[in-house]
Amino acid sequence: MPTPTDTTNSTDATADPPEDDFTVTPYAVTGEVDYDKLLERFGADPLTDDQIKRFPDHPLLRRRTFYAGRDVDSYLDAAAAGEPHAIVTGRGPSGPMHLGHVLPLYLAKRFQQETGATVYIPLSDDEKFLAKAQSFESIGEHTHENLRDVLAVGFDPERTRIVVDTADADVVYPIAVRLAKHLTPATVEAVYGEQDTVGLQFYPAVQATHLLLPQLVAGRQPTLVPIAIDQDPHVRICRDVAAKEALPVDKPGALLGRFLPSLAGPGKMSSSGDAPSIELTADYDTVAETIHTHAYTGGRATLEEHREHGGDPAVDVPFQYLRFFFEEDDDALDSIADAYRAGDLLSGELKELAIERITDFLAAHQRRRAELDGISNELESYRLTDDERRRALERAGVPRVLENYSH
Amino acid sequence: MPTPTDTTNSTDATADPPEDDFTVTPYAVTGEVDYDKLLERFGADPLTDDQIKRFPDHPLLRRRTFYAGRDVDSYLDAAAAGEPHAIVTGRGPSGPMHLGHVLPLYLAKRFQQETGATVYIPLSDDEKFLAKAQSFESIGEHTHENLRDVLAVGFDPERTRIVVDTADADVVYPIAVRLAKHLTPATVEAVYGEQDTVGLQFYPAVQATHLLLPQLVAGRQPTLVPIAIDQDPHVRICRDVAAKEALPVDKPGALLGRFLPSLAGPGKMSSSGDAPSIELTADYDTVAETIHTHAYTGGRATLEEHREHGGDPAVDVPFQYLRFFFEEDDDALDSIADAYRAGDLLSGELKELAIERITDFLAAHQRRRAELDGISNELESYRLTDDERRRALERAGVPRVLENYSH
Repeated sequence: MPTPTDTTNSTDATADPPEDDFTVTPYAVTGEVDYDKLLERFGADPLTDDQIKRFPDHPLLRRRTFYAGRDVDSYLDAAAAGEPHAIVTGRGPSGPMHLGHVLPLYLAKRFQQETGATVYIPLSDDEKFLAKAQSFESIGEHTHENLRDVLAVGFDPERTRIVVDTADADVVYPIAVRLAKHLTPATVEAVYGEQDTVGLQFYPAVQATHLLLPQLVAGRQPTLVPIAIDQDPHVRICRDVAAKEALPVDKPGALLGRFLPSLAGPGKMSSSGDAPSIELTADYDTVAETIHTHAYTGGRATLEEHREHGGDPAVDVPFQYLRFFFEEDDDALDSIADAYRAGDLLSGELKELAIERITDFLAAHQRRRAELDGISNELESYRLTDDERRRALERAGVPRVLENYSH
Repeated sequence: MPTPTDTTNSTDATADPPEDDFTVTPYAVTGEVDYDKLLERFGADPLTDDQIKRFPDHPLLRRRTFYAGRDVDSYLDAAAAGEPHAIVTGRGPSGPMHLGHVLPLYLAKRFQQETGATVYIPLSDDEKFLAKAQSFESIGEHTHENLRDVLAVGFDPERTRIVVDTADADVVYPIAVRLAKHLTPATVEAVYGEQDTVGLQFYPAVQATHLLLPQLVAGRQPTLVPIAIDQDPHVRICRDVAAKEALPVDKPGALLGRFLPSLAGPGKMSSSGDAPSIELTADYDTVAETIHTHAYTGGRATLEEHREHGGDPAVDVPFQYLRFFFEEDDDALDSIADAYRAGDLLSGELKELAIERITDFLAAHQRRRAELDGISNELESYRLTDDERRRALERAGVPRVLENYSH
């Protein structure tokens, strides 16, 4: 039976989770998540006020949606000193992207703008093909559409690398093999549970490759992986592997986030769950209809009650959207919360506020998306160069059999 | 407990082997191998006289070193009709190549010369890195040296494709992922036993990719895989996967061989065993010294006894070398056997005969090897073209995300 283990700075990715009334793995989130308990369980550290201040200012951090991390200080030190530092934030292309998927990308863009972080964006089309009941062709179409959304965020091509596992297999696969040599079935099973196919058994080595790529391409540097906390096992496996191997890399750090609520209320915003998600392609009418019909509110049952007792912003999903991302101004957000609590602001009015902000955001995203040329052309300046591929394989200790020898 | 299973045309790669006094898996051969029992165990068919006659004439077939197969007739039919047909014969580059490794390549060359077979030669540097206690760099050096030996065989570049798993990962990995989707851990474990790393768990999908490549590149065609019978599980896994997937390929066939004896006597010639192997780089003195010192003979203890009772060619390793490969003329071979049995030919003299033939063979191989230019240049015309890669991925149903879409 699983027992609680020492979790302080633990790097043991194989520890059994203690039994609790919630489950958080990369493949399933059930129950009501206790975020503090999760940190204990995973052995990560809550962000300090000082750390929050040292990050580029962003509501996702300032309001502690990202609330914990691993090896955050070395990243902040490098960013402050103008030394190389990297972000890895990936995408599993199994469907259209929705708001919850793109917000971390906009956060990464902010980091890039403020401190010059290099941003790596791996798209795990291999894993999604293996994990989902979809054809490779279908995954390919999602990959293509997702790439348009990634490009629409507007990263600096000089400091951004987009990697697609099947399209960049020349560099991804050999490095994954290098890492797989010491990745045991027992480790993978302890972290992810039993896998149905040998493809998914191998995939954690590919994932670890993603997280080490910035350092393999450009040399040892602090790497931060901003992820919802359910994805933390990927980081822990990579940290274990990086520590075991004699590779010229440091363990990647992590910035761990709470889940964005689904429209139906607390829990992870998911495109596969029951509540509808807001897709990035949604227009005003769709956003309005979706939020009016499905958004869980903190309002009262009747107008009279609401006017008298006020609403509860803490559970109100439209308010939470504003808090997470769409109302950056703290005073403005406080005013909204106050008016809602006082009963001056109605649920419908709060919804309208959120709809307006989300729609403005999406319209800008969609405009940039529409302006994109063909994917192949647009991607060119974001792909690993031949020289970068060569250096990554070299640092990973993978011989380039057909190039390294002259005799 | 394992029980005997129906083996007639069985395609069930997961059947437990019956317990016997010998073990044959891709990773271990122990005990005295009963080749007929192996066929029952593996569910393959002995070659008929008619099939032997239809193959290009070669002592390895005529004398039934290759003695069994799977789906041999469809290959022979295509070869006879001048229709496309392919051979896949690979190499695991974990050390220098010795005689036992190169003979199947020369057999494949004969097939290519006689019937125009396309020959695919995959080098599994990934698997060898994962399976051996060697650095990737060391595997890379062996890969490079092995490639020189493969090229020295003198295949027709128009009809030959050499694939190195790490160097051709752009095509190998995505196809392996495609095949891995329905390759379960249970299947792999039943066939290969428990694997130590997730890399080796995944590798059978890569191996299956090798065997399907000719058809994925150039369309459905009979493919024959000539291998020592211990490698048959690779073929069975691939046949199972090919049958399960809706890929436009036929199951690959197999041509199954007995092991070449080690110098020390019956058993598999192995570079990792106790008896020394004859490496392809060996000169006359080395070959002579190795055979004189280590070759097991069928001669008598004393000269007098030998003259009186004669020797036994059936267990004499130098004679077996002549029989397998180095004396193509049946009458000449019979004369040698007769003289040996009669006591007219001494063990030392028989050794000299074998030394001479092997040395001639090696000298020609070494001459062609020395004449090679740098590997990168030499390999160019043997590598998959961009167009072939594209077609293989397309037939495997792997979307080319960055090229297939224009909008």
